[in-house]
Amino acid sequence: MSKNLSKNQLRRLPEYLTLLRNLKQNGIKYISCQTIADCLNLNKELVRKDIAAVSSYDGVPNKGRDIVLLIKDFEKILGYDSSHNAVLVGVGSLGKALLCYDGFSTYGLKIVGAFDRNPELIGRTINDIHIYDSRRMFGTLSTLNANIGIICVPSGFAQEVANDLVDSGIEAIWNFAPTKIEVKKDVILSNMDMATSLAVLSHQLYLKKNKRKEN
Amino acid sequence: MSKNLSKNQLRRLPEYLTLLRNLKQNGIKYISCQTIADCLNLNKELVRKDIAAVSSYDGVPNKGRDIVLLIKDFEKILGYDSSHNAVLVGVGSLGKALLCYDGFSTYGLKIVGAFDRNPELIGRTINDIHIYDSRRMFGTLSTLNANIGIICVPSGFAQEVANDLVDSGIEAIWNFAPTKIEVKKDVILSNMDMATSLAVLSHQLYLKKNKRKEN
Repeated sequence: MSKNLSKNQLRRLPEYLTLLRNLKQNGIKYISCQTIADCLNLNKELVRKDIAAVSSYDGVPNKGRDIVLLIKDFEKILGYDSSHNAVLVGVGSLGKALLCYDGFSTYGLKIVGAFDRNPELIGRTINDIHIYDSRRMFGTLSTLNANIGIICVPSGFAQEVANDLVDSGIEAIWNFAPTKIEVKKDVILSNMDMATSLAVLSHQLYLKKNKRKEN
Repeated sequence: MSKNLSKNQLRRLPEYLTLLRNLKQNGIKYISCQTIADCLNLNKELVRKDIAAVSSYDGVPNKGRDIVLLIKDFEKILGYDSSHNAVLVGVGSLGKALLCYDGFSTYGLKIVGAFDRNPELIGRTINDIHIYDSRRMFGTLSTLNANIGIICVPSGFAQEVANDLVDSGIEAIWNFAPTKIEVKKDVILSNMDMATSLAVLSHQLYLKKNKRKEN
């Protein structure tokens, strides 16, 4: 199976997976679409369609679907079954925070190395992750066996870093820099723009404050 | 001035501000729209429109725009001129990472307290931020003078926490839980869904791998 899932489906999939893993940990073996829908506050038909898109197993009458098989299907289609190695570029405050974040393993992601050009950081480790010299990215990357690059450098350097990563053979880029970057068609790109998300919030608070003043 | 800016404009505004602050630090006093456009790789007319939406000052002939005045206008419209106090709920791995992140001050955000229900965390501090008992949120929040709530709890608890925050008088919610939450109309909501962003990336890597296998 090699399906193109919608973004909304991809949003729900990690939620299903978290629920199923929790249920499995609690010794539960079968589950119905209705129960999944109830637990996640979703429509039952929507759950049925999502599961049909991911899993080819039918449910067992009067029992429901086998949770272990469902988990396997979800992990496979989300690419979580084989761990992805990632490198992080830019060990500033956000980069450091992500290196310290221990939740990535849940999503099959492992940060195997970091890059920075600051001599005070090069050679140090954070959360057991080694920081390499970003000017030697090409040579170092070939030894790290990573296919995802996480960009945490300031906006002005993001495109340059993306080019370097792609030239070094990285297949997917997760961009945390608050700027658009361009990559060739066969490179996967996902943006994670904390600065914009916070700017939207902060600007709306400003509008609200102004409205109060006007009234 | 109390403008409604588009989301694309709000994406660019923090970028302009970062550039202007850097230029000011380097002793530069005036800048033209053309130079801003060149530095950020944007179209000059777009830059001119963005600046007109934010600033009422004209440029000085042959010099450009006064950087100090521009910075003030950007900070004002982004709500960064008056610092917003925020509380964070859910001190798991993501919550911890955000508490350790020192970059929020650039965006006028200060985390003044955290909440969790784990007895091992309550009473501790992380990066000088005190962790309070989330079951006493209502009383504690009234002393913290915060208007933003950052949600980092698991999906299943996000709506409940959002309700508690709103009932305690929080005006804006920044939701990091990978689920949709609902709030009443006058509460500001911005979502920051790392899990979905990573799921999109990971699923596309899975599709790419499958395609290679098929060829």
